Amino acid sequence: MIKKQPLILITNDDGIDAPGIRALIDAMGKIGRVVVVAPDQGRSGQAHAITVNHPLRPRLLVNKHDHLEYCTNGTPVDCVKLALKVIMSEKPDIIVSGINHGTNASINIVYSGTMAATIEGCMEGIPSVGFSLCDFSLDADFKPSIPWVTQIVLSILKDGLPKGICLNVNIPLSSKEPIKGMKITRQGDGNWAEEFDHRIDPRGRDYYWMTGKYNSNGHESNTDEWALERGYISIQPVTFDLTAHHLISLLEKQLSQ
Amino acid sequence: MIKKQPLILITNDDGIDAPGIRALIDAMGKIGRVVVVAPDQGRSGQAHAITVNHPLRPRLLVNKHDHLEYCTNGTPVDCVKLALKVIMSEKPDIIVSGINHGTNASINIVYSGTMAATIEGCMEGIPSVGFSLCDFSLDADFKPSIPWVTQIVLSILKDGLPKGICLNVNIPLSSKEPIKGMKITRQGDGNWAEEFDHRIDPRGRDYYWMTGKYNSNGHESNTDEWALERGYISIQPVTFDLTAHHLISLLEKQLSQ
Repeated sequence: MIKKQPLILITNDDGIDAPGIRALIDAMGKIGRVVVVAPDQGRSGQAHAITVNHPLRPRLLVNKHDHLEYCTNGTPVDCVKLALKVIMSEKPDIIVSGINHGTNASINIVYSGTMAATIEGCMEGIPSVGFSLCDFSLDADFKPSIPWVTQIVLSILKDGLPKGICLNVNIPLSSKEPIKGMKITRQGDGNWAEEFDHRIDPRGRDYYWMTGKYNSNGHESNTDEWALERGYISIQPVTFDLTAHHLISLLEKQLSQ
Repeated sequence: MIKKQPLILITNDDGIDAPGIRALIDAMGKIGRVVVVAPDQGRSGQAHAITVNHPLRPRLLVNKHDHLEYCTNGTPVDCVKLALKVIMSEKPDIIVSGINHGTNASINIVYSGTMAATIEGCMEGIPSVGFSLCDFSLDADFKPSIPWVTQIVLSILKDGLPKGICLNVNIPLSSKEPIKGMKITRQGDGNWAEEFDHRIDPRGRDYYWMTGKYNSNGHESNTDEWALERGYISIQPVTFDLTAHHLISLLEKQLSQ
């Protein structure tokens, strides 16, 4: 049973003006009451960073009965913390993050502010899901994603999520063919080959812009990239327990030698 | 077999002047050649954040044959990327991060720049280990930790680490009793209860300082906090695969209904 007017907290890492979060806010407004707390500008690559060395400033932008919007000078995780501890007097029924401009499949999840906000919600015991569209461009078309996003959010509102996990949902581009369906996946293998663009400033000092190219190391069966490549939405169950459990006994043996 | 002069990359998140990294640099200099690339100031709570919106500036501080030191305006993960892609012409044999002022046990690992730098090294296929002392104070005594840190680093240089894992090593305070030994552990359960200190600036605008208190949710057997509480060093094998593998089949069943 879904509550009549579930309370939905929305955030992202591309900033409150990004088309991805605007599309998400519209869709979630049809499901329940929405509170948006999002960065005032793009905060991609912020991962799980929190702000402790300067103060946070939430700024109220929209103040309607069932639709509140704040932007903040903080990271995505700061936004979730501010929402839960300062802004909202009622616990949200779900936290929805995104829709991110660009994939968070494979190791991209490690750098992602969108997914860190989702994980933060999960750490607070709130059902949480992050959505990403495999299109980095600012004018990405989010329309084909919306029915799927709505369906997944409604399903979480109805059934909840197992304790300690949240979902990393990546949506393939559907310009060529419609989305085929959904697959439960595991994290694929890839790496970023950084390149640093070396320049010299007018005072003669070196500086570097970080750029890079993502390399997939093959798409093994049932990984997120495997599903996306085949036109399926990837749903990765995500934990914040970073322990490599399968290696504990091996290391114990080495330690006792 | 350990190479005669292994090449050791050192970083941290408390900044290049922190006593923890200075103690680590001294100890590692006795094992091999050291390259230090660390933030120019404290960067705690930066997690796996990378800097893409402004340029990075490495600054050379020490330039000896077997001892290089750079500080940068970047995050701990930026430091590792700069070290591997710009500063070092030779791949390091090991990456050692810390010694952090304060614990990175339990969920603290999720926010930790010290451990993110370690994980970044692991993602690059380099044996990596992060050390943290359970003492947040600036004048923490790192001396009792050093023989253990040295032993762990030598052991990794000799035997390597299994593919895809790095180590999160937390060291108990030893002011009352000496360290008892080492335990292989898993991540404990806890949460941060944030409080936001609300103030009003001279222009009448609200701002908030994030503060908080860590709550351990009980120390189950074989967790990091369980080991630390008993006077043991905690060694947690860490993965960057965030998939909750144990829940894939359950979710697949739900999806197919």
